[in-house]
Amino acid sequence: MDIAYGKALFVDLTTGTSKTEILDEEVLRAYLGGSGIAAWLFSSLVPPGIDPLDPANPLVFALGPLCGTTAPTSGRHELATLSPLTGLFAESDVGGAWGSVFRNTGYDFLAIVGAAKAPVALVITETGARVEDAGSLWGADTFATYDHYSEKYPGSETACIGIAGERLVKIACVSHDGRDARMAGRCGLGAVMGSKKLKAVVAAPSTKAPRKIHDAAALAESAREMARNLPLRAELMAKFGTAGTLKGAYTFGDVPFKNWALGSTDIDLDAISGQKLAETGRLKKRFFCTMCSIGCGRVIELSDGKLGAGAEYETVCELGANLLIDDIEAIITANEKANRYGIDTISAGGVIGFLMEAYEKDQLNGLDLSGVVPAWGSGKALIQLIDLIGTRTGLGVFLGEGVARASKSVGSPDYAVHVKGLEFPAHDPRAFNSLGLSYATGNRGACHLQGMTYSFEKSLSLPERNFEKPQDRFGSDRKAELVVASQDFMSLLDSLKLCKFSLFGGNSASVALEWLNLATGWNMGMEEFFRAGERIFNLKRLYNSSRGASRKDDCLPKRILQEPKGGGAGQNLPPDFEASLDDYYRLRGWTSDGIPTIAKMEELDLPGIV
Amino acid sequence: MDIAYGKALFVDLTTGTSKTEILDEEVLRAYLGGSGIAAWLFSSLVPPGIDPLDPANPLVFALGPLCGTTAPTSGRHELATLSPLTGLFAESDVGGAWGSVFRNTGYDFLAIVGAAKAPVALVITETGARVEDAGSLWGADTFATYDHYSEKYPGSETACIGIAGERLVKIACVSHDGRDARMAGRCGLGAVMGSKKLKAVVAAPSTKAPRKIHDAAALAESAREMARNLPLRAELMAKFGTAGTLKGAYTFGDVPFKNWALGSTDIDLDAISGQKLAETGRLKKRFFCTMCSIGCGRVIELSDGKLGAGAEYETVCELGANLLIDDIEAIITANEKANRYGIDTISAGGVIGFLMEAYEKDQLNGLDLSGVVPAWGSGKALIQLIDLIGTRTGLGVFLGEGVARASKSVGSPDYAVHVKGLEFPAHDPRAFNSLGLSYATGNRGACHLQGMTYSFEKSLSLPERNFEKPQDRFGSDRKAELVVASQDFMSLLDSLKLCKFSLFGGNSASVALEWLNLATGWNMGMEEFFRAGERIFNLKRLYNSSRGASRKDDCLPKRILQEPKGGGAGQNLPPDFEASLDDYYRLRGWTSDGIPTIAKMEELDLPGIV
Repeated sequence: MDIAYGKALFVDLTTGTSKTEILDEEVLRAYLGGSGIAAWLFSSLVPPGIDPLDPANPLVFALGPLCGTTAPTSGRHELATLSPLTGLFAESDVGGAWGSVFRNTGYDFLAIVGAAKAPVALVITETGARVEDAGSLWGADTFATYDHYSEKYPGSETACIGIAGERLVKIACVSHDGRDARMAGRCGLGAVMGSKKLKAVVAAPSTKAPRKIHDAAALAESAREMARNLPLRAELMAKFGTAGTLKGAYTFGDVPFKNWALGSTDIDLDAISGQKLAETGRLKKRFFCTMCSIGCGRVIELSDGKLGAGAEYETVCELGANLLIDDIEAIITANEKANRYGIDTISAGGVIGFLMEAYEKDQLNGLDLSGVVPAWGSGKALIQLIDLIGTRTGLGVFLGEGVARASKSVGSPDYAVHVKGLEFPAHDPRAFNSLGLSYATGNRGACHLQGMTYSFEKSLSLPERNFEKPQDRFGSDRKAELVVASQDFMSLLDSLKLCKFSLFGGNSASVALEWLNLATGWNMGMEEFFRAGERIFNLKRLYNSSRGASRKDDCLPKRILQEPKGGGAGQNLPPDFEASLDDYYRLRGWTSDGIPTIAKMEELDLPGIV
Repeated sequence: MDIAYGKALFVDLTTGTSKTEILDEEVLRAYLGGSGIAAWLFSSLVPPGIDPLDPANPLVFALGPLCGTTAPTSGRHELATLSPLTGLFAESDVGGAWGSVFRNTGYDFLAIVGAAKAPVALVITETGARVEDAGSLWGADTFATYDHYSEKYPGSETACIGIAGERLVKIACVSHDGRDARMAGRCGLGAVMGSKKLKAVVAAPSTKAPRKIHDAAALAESAREMARNLPLRAELMAKFGTAGTLKGAYTFGDVPFKNWALGSTDIDLDAISGQKLAETGRLKKRFFCTMCSIGCGRVIELSDGKLGAGAEYETVCELGANLLIDDIEAIITANEKANRYGIDTISAGGVIGFLMEAYEKDQLNGLDLSGVVPAWGSGKALIQLIDLIGTRTGLGVFLGEGVARASKSVGSPDYAVHVKGLEFPAHDPRAFNSLGLSYATGNRGACHLQGMTYSFEKSLSLPERNFEKPQDRFGSDRKAELVVASQDFMSLLDSLKLCKFSLFGGNSASVALEWLNLATGWNMGMEEFFRAGERIFNLKRLYNSSRGASRKDDCLPKRILQEPKGGGAGQNLPPDFEASLDDYYRLRGWTSDGIPTIAKMEELDLPGIV
């Protein structure tokens, strides 16, 4: 290995001690970085059977081997832990600036166990970790917290929680980049920081040394053209942000309405699109994650007159279309509040959608609503509910547990739209035949990014796995195979920490592997590369199996599987689910109950977790 | 079989249909009645993997073979279902008058599946079930509901829920006898009725025919002496009710204080005892369950000037001592409210104790408290919290989930005192060496009545299982054996539906078996009898295994197992728990992970559930 890579910092907040270790090259080559190393560190450290909010739950931050290089979109990082929302393996992939600044400390990985007695921040420099009192910031929102450390440590970047994380809301995020709100959004990671009384993790290096890699010149050369092409090929994202894809997604039948009951309604979808935001003059500029040339982030004027994040595609869908809300001002307000409290807008929209449906159907069984009237389309209710969830108050205590627990608690789980407790993102399995299987088998629950199979049924190919051209989205051929290939490929991108959007600008498995070899000096072939992707995916699955997850958890909600979709493009129902699951397990080399076999574990050199 | 016994009524509330079946004598002889037949009917009807609030969850009411005879304490009945509190098999044993009145319809068992669309009551007569609209009673408390049906159907008896059950509070009861409040209290059965929109089950027979049994004269003769002896031998219960045993229990170290942290405090225990209640003149008379001559129920003047139930031993402990409250007026008020809402005072006290401790330790992580100051000893807070739990409002939404979920949700499960999600009753495992093992292996969770082993370490013997005299409560000999024997014996009493208190008046396994044979004409021997007890216990265990329960769930809270008890009688810590669990599994013929073996299932003729 010809790269300065693999330095890990271990911090125990209970004892206040830390240590540094350099990970073996063998481990790095097997798990690569980012998602892979985060999962490996997590599963090495986590005691069996603990509760997610137990101090012993490890929280891991991990960069990829390309972080600090000129490779486009390589500035991302990964967080992993045991999820308070799902009770299973949790991870979240984040952009922004935190990763590349943390990289300047010389560390690539940070694993935190234990819990402080009183609120603290963890400040990371070249010499290791320092635990700092953060009592005065407890109760502060994510913007104020970020600003505080930006001022105290110029040039630093801060990952932090808002009030929601402090109060252990199960859909709380870890926020980065302050007002620009790059969120480790899913699976309730913020509650884990809260349970550790860890308000912030501040990367505060004093130097900005370039990363030493194997062949920087060749990597720069290989990366240059893509960097130039990215904003051109991902033009819609660059010009209108992710919310600019709303109308296009709608034509595919990909956008949910009315808690996934409908595929089309008469709400004004234009009014909440990225294009409209640009027209109205609210849009001030673009936000670029480090080393990204797309700049899909939107910067708008927030309520305090300062600049900050505009609502993303997921947010306008989940807090908008899916609640029949087309009042963009209400959505922007709710989004800003969610960012300040530090709550996931996807999960929040999911649980609020459930609430609105249960309210309409009078199936809340007398639950006290804290004075809110949660009617479809009510921007007022949306904002009230975000306040209640974010502050863990009244009805928000109930909603903040996530849609799986909340729905079970009122006895109406049929239209709770989630997998393994994680609320659906705004991509409809009835619009792409691979997507349901991909959601159902996702290690963190319903996730579009860890499978992202729909992209290969839309515009992308995956020739390295013999998908030479985009697949028929309503076809039945090779769907389980596509899910396996795509999940393994996404595991690789998440481990190298390259943005999925780079695929629209020319990135591919071949390019990613070329970059990895140029950075490390390895001479890894495509089969070893994909084998690593498979290993990483299986490691998470094995951990989930140890928590009792099996076929019974690889399922889709009744709303999706059994209730014909009301209108819009796409199909009424997804294809035969159980048959595709059988195919999938067979291709994965798992038992018919979805458990990785000993043979598969040996083939992948996986530790004997189960 | 020489008895009119075994008629079962099956009602489907979804379709509004019902049918009658006579159970086979083979089944009756294998599962006897009450708890055994309830478990058998439940496990025959329950679909795999359902949620407890799913309409398909069966709710079973079951009498015993002695109901309607002159056998002392034989008027009880059993309810069984899947618990919304624990997610496992649930049952509750109840006294009062409902059972013997239901018996006059000619039915012995009632199994309800499905759910109504709008609130209904089920009226049972000799000709079967009638579904009646109960919309006008939705929102009424248990007293008003009972009074309504008593007036509408003179001579009827009603099992019903209050607002808590309607609102799916997970610690909601099913109430009987109106103001006299004979509660099917544990495991949240009320929420199952609520989820079925079933406000009440009214037994409204038009006749009062004596039960035809094998040898009524001999049974009456055998029962007569015990009926006479019961109030004499159980004098304390008769004179001062169950709360009359408070001071005696305290001398054993059996009473919990301050959420089980202490065994003694300076609160005024006398002030909340049954003796004090008698002295103050509040006590008006005794309440007798049908066919009981003890009359341990207390009748006092309630807040509306009418008569009703005084607080039981469990209530004065859980809502009193364990919260450091010695204000008897506050306890009586809270008890009356709990009875009206229909919530379990044991579970309520458990979760409130957790709250008070977490509040004192500032470990609620900013959870909104709905304006309550939950300080130790505060009768005001107690009453406010019962109101919030009973109406599922504000903080009560959180507390009403039970202590396991509530504590997990704020990340502090260490001092959540429960087994399998069921809050501890007020008997301390540190006062009797068998009790911890008995709680840990209880099929419905921490339960004193399904093991009741402490009685055999206090004053009772069980010669039919070779425990010729009371055991040393701090000894180590034969403890696992005692737990097995006692659990099987209690399964028999719960299936014959005889009150455990009858043991203090001369009842025994020999007497119970004699009565069973006199009633049925069977010639059952002691081994077959105990084998039935073992079968019944194992059937519930098998069902729980199918829900994923195993050794990991047979555990005691850290508070009990690891934290030395503060003061009072008894020991600081219970004996070596894991070793006793090994012994227990071996004696049960289960695997070391606590799963009944195929050999054991075959030996007991148990169906292949797992």
